[in-house]
Amino acid sequence: MPFDYCDVLRADLPGPAGRWSGFPAHNFVGGHMDADHVPVEDLIAALTNALQREGKNLATYNLRTGPLGYRPLREFIAGALKARAAMAVDPDEILITSGSLQSMDLVNQMMLSPGDTVVLEQATYGGAITRLQARGAHPVGVALDEDGMRMDALEETLTRLAGEGRTPKFIYTIPTVQNPTGTVMPVARRERMLALADRFGVAIFEDDCYADLLWEGERPPAIYALDDGRRVLYCGSFSKSIAPALRLGYVVADWGGLSRLVALKTDAGTGALEQLALADYCAPHFDDHVSRATASLKRKHDVMVEALIAEFGTAAEFAPAKGGIFLWIKLPEGVDTGKLAAAAGAEGISLNPGAEWTVDGDDHRHWMRLCFGHPTPEEIVEGVAKLARICHREFGVPTTGGNLLRG
Amino acid sequence: MPFDYCDVLRADLPGPAGRWSGFPAHNFVGGHMDADHVPVEDLIAALTNALQREGKNLATYNLRTGPLGYRPLREFIAGALKARAAMAVDPDEILITSGSLQSMDLVNQMMLSPGDTVVLEQATYGGAITRLQARGAHPVGVALDEDGMRMDALEETLTRLAGEGRTPKFIYTIPTVQNPTGTVMPVARRERMLALADRFGVAIFEDDCYADLLWEGERPPAIYALDDGRRVLYCGSFSKSIAPALRLGYVVADWGGLSRLVALKTDAGTGALEQLALADYCAPHFDDHVSRATASLKRKHDVMVEALIAEFGTAAEFAPAKGGIFLWIKLPEGVDTGKLAAAAGAEGISLNPGAEWTVDGDDHRHWMRLCFGHPTPEEIVEGVAKLARICHREFGVPTTGGNLLRG
Repeated sequence: MPFDYCDVLRADLPGPAGRWSGFPAHNFVGGHMDADHVPVEDLIAALTNALQREGKNLATYNLRTGPLGYRPLREFIAGALKARAAMAVDPDEILITSGSLQSMDLVNQMMLSPGDTVVLEQATYGGAITRLQARGAHPVGVALDEDGMRMDALEETLTRLAGEGRTPKFIYTIPTVQNPTGTVMPVARRERMLALADRFGVAIFEDDCYADLLWEGERPPAIYALDDGRRVLYCGSFSKSIAPALRLGYVVADWGGLSRLVALKTDAGTGALEQLALADYCAPHFDDHVSRATASLKRKHDVMVEALIAEFGTAAEFAPAKGGIFLWIKLPEGVDTGKLAAAAGAEGISLNPGAEWTVDGDDHRHWMRLCFGHPTPEEIVEGVAKLARICHREFGVPTTGGNLLRG
Repeated sequence: MPFDYCDVLRADLPGPAGRWSGFPAHNFVGGHMDADHVPVEDLIAALTNALQREGKNLATYNLRTGPLGYRPLREFIAGALKARAAMAVDPDEILITSGSLQSMDLVNQMMLSPGDTVVLEQATYGGAITRLQARGAHPVGVALDEDGMRMDALEETLTRLAGEGRTPKFIYTIPTVQNPTGTVMPVARRERMLALADRFGVAIFEDDCYADLLWEGERPPAIYALDDGRRVLYCGSFSKSIAPALRLGYVVADWGGLSRLVALKTDAGTGALEQLALADYCAPHFDDHVSRATASLKRKHDVMVEALIAEFGTAAEFAPAKGGIFLWIKLPEGVDTGKLAAAAGAEGISLNPGAEWTVDGDDHRHWMRLCFGHPTPEEIVEGVAKLARICHREFGVPTTGGNLLRG
C-alpha cells in the first residue's frame, strides 16, 4: 500500500465538508442577498475609475497603503461610522478584513485560549458559536427580549460565573438588528453593558454587521461610541449592505488592539479589487444604495410575515424584525426543526434549525430562522406554503393554513 | 482605573505589529512586482465583461458556484496546470484561496499538531518557517545544491529522525524556482522524493508559487504530476504571475484532502472580484503575459547580477537564478546581514537577512536575499552601489567595487 496523507491528518480535525450540490429552490438560509440589489453598472464604473488611477499599484502588496488596507476605503468607513453610529474613529483605527468572519477569527485569536469563557446572546449567529467551540472556548448564553440582550440576565450570569471563579474574556453581542431576533438594543442597555464590563473586567466584542439594514426607529450610537476607554472591539461588513461575494469587512479598535490584530492577519492583505471597487463606489453611492436595499428588504420581510400568518396561523410565533434579512420563529414544542430542515431540504427548501442558532441548543429545538434576503417575494410565498405542508405532514402542525383545514 | 481589554489578551500572543511607515526607496524584499507588468487596461476589460455577465451573482456567496471557488477560474487553472506542469487535475480538485499564504495556513492546519516535525529546504521562504513555529511544529532543514533539495541529505535526515522516533508530517518543498536559491529540481530527484515519502510515511507539500516565472530550461512535471497516489498536496498562486495585491492562490488535492481543507476555510469564500477578473483575463492572456513578465524579470535579474559583480566583486558569491525575483547571496563570514539590514534600512534600502530565510539561522548570518521584482533597473544599480558602500562602512567589505578601491 502506498503512503496516503489522509492517514496522518491532525487528530482533532473537524469532519470533512460535503460536496457542493447547488442552491435549493427556496433558499431561506445564509446571508445571501437579492440579485436585484447589486449595483452592477455603478460597480463597473467605480472599478474602471479606480483601476485607471491605481492599477499600477496592484504590483505591490496592500496597494502601497500598508497592512491596515486601502486608505481611501478606511476614510470612507470612518466617515460612515461617524454619520451612522456616532463613532469618532481615525482611519488608522480601522483594519480592513476579508469579511467579518475573518474579523471574528482575528478577535477570537487575539483574546482566547482553550478553556476560556465567552458570554453571548442566547440566540445568536451559529457561526459565532461553532468558532468559539473550535477554539476550545465555552460559550455561555444570556436571555434576550424585544430589546436584545437583557442586562439583568447579563448581570446574573456574570455574577454566577464570578462565583465559579470564571471571568469571561468578552461579551459577544449583535446589538443592532440582532441575529436572529432582529431586535435593537436601546442606549440605556448599551451603557449598562459598559458598566458591567468595567465591574466584572470583561471586554465587549460588538458585531454591527446588519446595522445598516435598520428600517424601524433610529439607529442608536454603537456601544463603541459610548466607550471612553478600551473596553470595546467593533466589527462591521459590506456583505449585507453591498454584496456578500465581495469579501470585505473591518475591525475598529485603537492601536493597542489593532497592532495585535495586524500581527495575526497573516494573509498579506485583503483583496485589492474589492477594496478599490468599494472605495470608489461607496463614497458617492452608499447612502442611497442602502436606503433602497433596506426598503426592498422591508417589503420582503412583510411578504414573509404575511405568508407565515397565512400558512402557519397561530402555530408560528414571532415578532416582526426591525431590520435585516431574517425572522426568528417559534413553532409548537413537538416540532423538531432539525428534522424539519432535513425533510424540507429533500424538497428544495433550506432553513436554520433553532438548535444551531442558540447556545443552549436543546431548549430551542422547535425554533427556526428563515432568511428573506435572497428569495423573491414569489419564492417566499411559495416556499413558506410548501414548508407549512411539509411541517404538517411530519409533525401534524399547522392544522390550518392557506385557507384550508389540514387533516 | 477602567477595564482595558489589552490587559486580558491571550497569554501566548505574538508581539504587536509596528506602525506602517511606507516603502523604502530601494525595496529589495517581498514579493512585490514591477508596476509596468500590471495589465491594467486588459484587467478593466475583463472585469467589465465578467461583471456584465455575472454581476448579479455577487448577491450570493461564492457566486453560486460553491465553496471551491468560481468554476471558470478553476477550469482555467486545470488547463494551465496541464499545459505547464503536466498535471492531470479536475477543476473539482482545485480550491481557490485568498493567496498562497492562506493555502499554506490551511494545509498546516489540516496536518499539524504542536510538537510535529516538518522537513524543508534549509534555505526557504521565511514565512513558511515562522508559520510552522507559530503552530508549535519543529522545522528541520535539508541541504540544497544547484539542483534544489539534495535527496541524499533528505534520506539521511529522514533516517536520523526515524532513529529518534520522529516521523515528519510532511516535506515542504519549492522545487521549481526555489525561494531563495532560484534553483529547479530535476525529475529524477522528484521521483526519488516520492519514493522516500512512501518509504518513510511522509507527505509532500509542493509550493509552486514561482514556477511560472522560469526562464532557464524546461519546466519539469510537478511532483504532484508524478504521484500516482495521495502523497502530494500542491499550491500555486497568481501573486507572482499577475499581481500580488490580487489575493488569489489555490490548493490542488484530491477530494480526500480537499474536503478537509474546505471545512477549515471558514471565510465564506475568496473575493469574487479577484476571481472574476482573473477568470476572464487569464483565459485569453495568461501565456503571453507571463512570457513578457518573465523576460522583463530576466533583464532585471541580469542588471542585479552585473551590479553585484561591479560593486561587491568577489565579496558576493551567488549563482544566477533560473527564474523568479530574487538572488541568494553569500557575503564574507564577518558580515552579519541582520545588522547590515538595520544599517541599510536606516538609509532606505531593505533586504532579507539570511538568518530569517533559513531553518538553521545562525549558519547563514552572512547570507542575504535581494529581490529585483519591484525596483526599476536604475533603482537596482543605485541601490546595490549604496548597499556596497554601507556594507564596507559597517564591515570593511567589499574592499573594491564601483571601479574604486575602498579604504
